[in-house]
Amino acid sequence: MEETKITKKILGIDPGTNVLGYAVLDTELNKSAVEVLSVLQMKKMPDMYDRLKYIYEKINAVIVQYKPDVLSIEAPFYGKNVQSMLKLGRAQGIVIAACLHAGMEVYEYSPRKIKQSITGNGNASKEQVSGMLCRMYPIAEQIEFLDATDALAAAVCHHLQQKVVFGKTKATSWKSFIAQNEDRIIK
Amino acid sequence: MEETKITKKILGIDPGTNVLGYAVLDTELNKSAVEVLSVLQMKKMPDMYDRLKYIYEKINAVIVQYKPDVLSIEAPFYGKNVQSMLKLGRAQGIVIAACLHAGMEVYEYSPRKIKQSITGNGNASKEQVSGMLCRMYPIAEQIEFLDATDALAAAVCHHLQQKVVFGKTKATSWKSFIAQNEDRIIK
Repeated sequence: MEETKITKKILGIDPGTNVLGYAVLDTELNKSAVEVLSVLQMKKMPDMYDRLKYIYEKINAVIVQYKPDVLSIEAPFYGKNVQSMLKLGRAQGIVIAACLHAGMEVYEYSPRKIKQSITGNGNASKEQVSGMLCRMYPIAEQIEFLDATDALAAAVCHHLQQKVVFGKTKATSWKSFIAQNEDRIIK
Repeated sequence: MEETKITKKILGIDPGTNVLGYAVLDTELNKSAVEVLSVLQMKKMPDMYDRLKYIYEKINAVIVQYKPDVLSIEAPFYGKNVQSMLKLGRAQGIVIAACLHAGMEVYEYSPRKIKQSITGNGNASKEQVSGMLCRMYPIAEQIEFLDATDALAAAVCHHLQQKVVFGKTKATSWKSFIAQNEDRIIK
């Protein structure tokens, strides 16, 4: 039986061409720590290609510095209009290209899935998601906090998914499954 | 006065995640030649990330082999629906990232601008654009020809733009302008 690969470091991205949130989550089986939590500010750059180039260079720098294994990116499947979706797609494509270039695996999660996994409610507000993350990790409030915490939320979402998969694959018999899932025994 | 930089090689791209057309145009001031004209076929790849990775790797290989100086990419500003625009944006973002990584300049042209510059008609059909390119260059018809010729059309469009700019900047006085534009003298 193959060993389950545990993700060590997850790069979470909340993509955008005005503000792009990013976070790196260092994970082990039962704990995780935030290595970086920040945003790229691009509102003052008039040229779209300057923004895309800035995203590419900065994300490459983050990859070089923190060496994440996987990308977890927030990927809405619908939007206000085609223009905003084209811009969002470009920002996603740039980030994905940088991560593929570094040999990272790529995962995407819908905003609803991310909110659900953090707060238990797929319709939670950004503030609720951020509030929950502040209780999970020792992170301080900062400017543009919600764009950064949305990125962290994507990383945490992937981490929680991995834990579920890990739990499942570890259980090779009823005995081990019961040992791991005592709360599921009806007494 | 600065020397006008003449583009040597133009990579033309018609982006898409089903079929992506690409072409490299080697240009000099008054002539140009097609170095490569082809497509990436991705319809049989079920996974979207496999497609994006394939685009990134293949475009990188084209850049390494042909060493283009600039990217000229077809960039529609509207589309049928937000889903298709998101996919298109991702394909564009991947290609732009590969080109920025190689230090290339990036230019985009609307489909209307490209058609206008090739055929003189912004509403020309793909067949009309392809037909004009077949008269301009010794290219043979092939499968998925229209996706490849759309990419070539983007490259030729940029080439024609450069020629216009070059012509303008060369004229440093009325004397030289008149010498270059004899057809504009009203006799």
